[in-house]
Amino acid sequence: MKVYLDNHSGTKLDERVFEAMLPYLKEHYGNPQSMHDLGAQAKQAIEAARRQVAGLINAAESEVYFTSCGSEANNLAVKGVAFAYKDKKRHIIVSQIEHFSVLYAARRLQQLGFEVAYAPVDKFGFVLLDELEKTIREDTVLVSIQHSNPEIGTIQNIKSVVEVCHRKGVLVHTDAVSSCGVVPIDVKELGVDLLSLSASQLYGPRGVAALYVRKGVRVIPLIDGGIQESGIRAGTENVAAIVGFGVAAEIAKTDLKENYEKMIKLRDKLIKEIPGRVKYVYLNGPVENRLPNNVNFSFEFIEGEGLSLLLNNKGIYVTSGSACASKALKMSHVLTAIGVDPAVGQGTLTMTLSKYNTEDEINYVLGVLPELVEKLRAISPLYSYFLQTGQRKPAGPGTDYDEHHQ
Amino acid sequence: MKVYLDNHSGTKLDERVFEAMLPYLKEHYGNPQSMHDLGAQAKQAIEAARRQVAGLINAAESEVYFTSCGSEANNLAVKGVAFAYKDKKRHIIVSQIEHFSVLYAARRLQQLGFEVAYAPVDKFGFVLLDELEKTIREDTVLVSIQHSNPEIGTIQNIKSVVEVCHRKGVLVHTDAVSSCGVVPIDVKELGVDLLSLSASQLYGPRGVAALYVRKGVRVIPLIDGGIQESGIRAGTENVAAIVGFGVAAEIAKTDLKENYEKMIKLRDKLIKEIPGRVKYVYLNGPVENRLPNNVNFSFEFIEGEGLSLLLNNKGIYVTSGSACASKALKMSHVLTAIGVDPAVGQGTLTMTLSKYNTEDEINYVLGVLPELVEKLRAISPLYSYFLQTGQRKPAGPGTDYDEHHQ
Repeated sequence: MKVYLDNHSGTKLDERVFEAMLPYLKEHYGNPQSMHDLGAQAKQAIEAARRQVAGLINAAESEVYFTSCGSEANNLAVKGVAFAYKDKKRHIIVSQIEHFSVLYAARRLQQLGFEVAYAPVDKFGFVLLDELEKTIREDTVLVSIQHSNPEIGTIQNIKSVVEVCHRKGVLVHTDAVSSCGVVPIDVKELGVDLLSLSASQLYGPRGVAALYVRKGVRVIPLIDGGIQESGIRAGTENVAAIVGFGVAAEIAKTDLKENYEKMIKLRDKLIKEIPGRVKYVYLNGPVENRLPNNVNFSFEFIEGEGLSLLLNNKGIYVTSGSACASKALKMSHVLTAIGVDPAVGQGTLTMTLSKYNTEDEINYVLGVLPELVEKLRAISPLYSYFLQTGQRKPAGPGTDYDEHHQ
Repeated sequence: MKVYLDNHSGTKLDERVFEAMLPYLKEHYGNPQSMHDLGAQAKQAIEAARRQVAGLINAAESEVYFTSCGSEANNLAVKGVAFAYKDKKRHIIVSQIEHFSVLYAARRLQQLGFEVAYAPVDKFGFVLLDELEKTIREDTVLVSIQHSNPEIGTIQNIKSVVEVCHRKGVLVHTDAVSSCGVVPIDVKELGVDLLSLSASQLYGPRGVAALYVRKGVRVIPLIDGGIQESGIRAGTENVAAIVGFGVAAEIAKTDLKENYEKMIKLRDKLIKEIPGRVKYVYLNGPVENRLPNNVNFSFEFIEGEGLSLLLNNKGIYVTSGSACASKALKMSHVLTAIGVDPAVGQGTLTMTLSKYNTEDEINYVLGVLPELVEKLRAISPLYSYFLQTGQRKPAGPGTDYDEHHQ
């Protein structure tokens, strides 16, 4: 049996989405900026997709700008706003547990003379609103806080973040890449000024994402050039992918409730039953306000990487860190921020469900997992020390998530 | 009959490329950064594609970085180098006839405190090397000059540009998007430090391009985040598109000579026979050192837009300007730079051939074109003035290609 539980690294393309893309991969190859029939046809297709994506988040079509990936959308939001308003305000706040594309966009701005503050989170990953409010300065231009965390599943109270920020005249961006298509998102209700979403998280193709920019908010492009995307994002449009994104967004909207209920049932089965089968295991992230597809456990005395490799050999695909960082880290910056003990945190697995997972698959995982954990603990010096002494070895220093970046 | 002569706006996907992409669109949906089998499979696929793309331009694999489009590659080159060396040097030179993604990247840098000079070209579009040399300053960090111009077909002598620049310690980027796969490109022979190429110009998919960065040259990312592309370009890899790019590059290399000979024969048929069939028509761009797929004529007394629409109604797809600008301009910045009279230049068509075009198609175009030109001239006040007086009306002021950008 193959069980794909790494959906936060990318979902399987929906067959209906593929079918919609197909003509635009093959015969409808016109450039939307060309004035002939083949161009006009492509133009119409991307504008239809824009309506569909706008519909998923209750935005106006003219507020949706296509990009090539979620990381680009996040960089465009953070850097784009910073550069647009730089002559007046040069201070930015991001949370400690943002995706690398927000964190490192902010750090790049620091190198270029902007100031950045990092809003702390509680032990479940929720941003501390009081602390956030205290961090806001006269010259704060933007607060960027993710809608949900793909690693530990925390869904922020963005509406309250917006209230705090707007009261002080600060724009709010939210990285909703892990949320869109998974939980209901309404930009009007949230009140955000910018929001990122990605097709690759909602059974759409790779290579396309979008940034919502509320009318009136200014953004300096990352990619200058042609007049595509109203001048916000130059470059020939990836028509087939955009068409796929549109169809995926429409399907996601229609099926949202059904998929939500299906996934949350499987999620809760994992969250409830794993601790019953494996000792010394700790759930990371909250129980309430958690993504319906997210499960994250730390398995004490072993390494997540080793466990994920043994699971892989059983046909179960999970990740031991966030996808971008999986090769670089012992423990993620997210677990560090919520105060997980590094000795425990290094034994962490993230499992992200999709609409395609079944109860049979989850039963298979639950059956296989305990023996693999035991196998690793049998060769773990930490575990044998614990068995002999009843004590945990003191943790070494935590790893720095910045190590692999310049 | 349908005749697609707008290939500089994007080529039709090669069927073999589509077949290679298919498994990566459907079943092989792993994220290359994930450590499980599905991830490893994707990782191997993109590294194989990197070898294929590197092979097309004689680069080392480690010098090829995938981006989402040619405009992104150009922005990454120009802005990336500018930001990387900004503490020492802040002057950049680009030619007057660069693609908008180079021109507007440079202008963005101007807004951010860099200085930009525009190297002039002669009446065929060749950069004036003496002028270029005089423009280089002590603090010039980068010269960006396209390998070939997609509108008028001029192939620059980049080797000489490199000699001039390297003698003065200046890095050279070349936008080879219109050249790669069309004419032989060897980064070692050219000696360039950075080179852009795009899959969409060589029968590969949209949504993927690459930047060659010579080992040792520093570039600051546009998109910060994960460790993809050695940290130069964050964002989940568009695996299927990258795989397609690889296969397209390999096919382009294998078939280059055959396609070159086929296209140049059709090109020369158009260049030779159009002036024999239509009066008051002028070839733009050079005869020698011209892209084998490029034809560009100005038809006096009429508008290129009108002519392209009439051709469209006959199933012939061409463009009356550069793709990105076709909706904004009367006459392109390229024609302005080579000194075309605006009264003549507004009647310009670009026809770009592909390997799929046939002699029958070209005969059809040659048959249809004269009557359409006559039709438009019959309702042209400029033409009737000319017929009555034997004089040309004096031209109005040229349009500014900056008009549609802020």
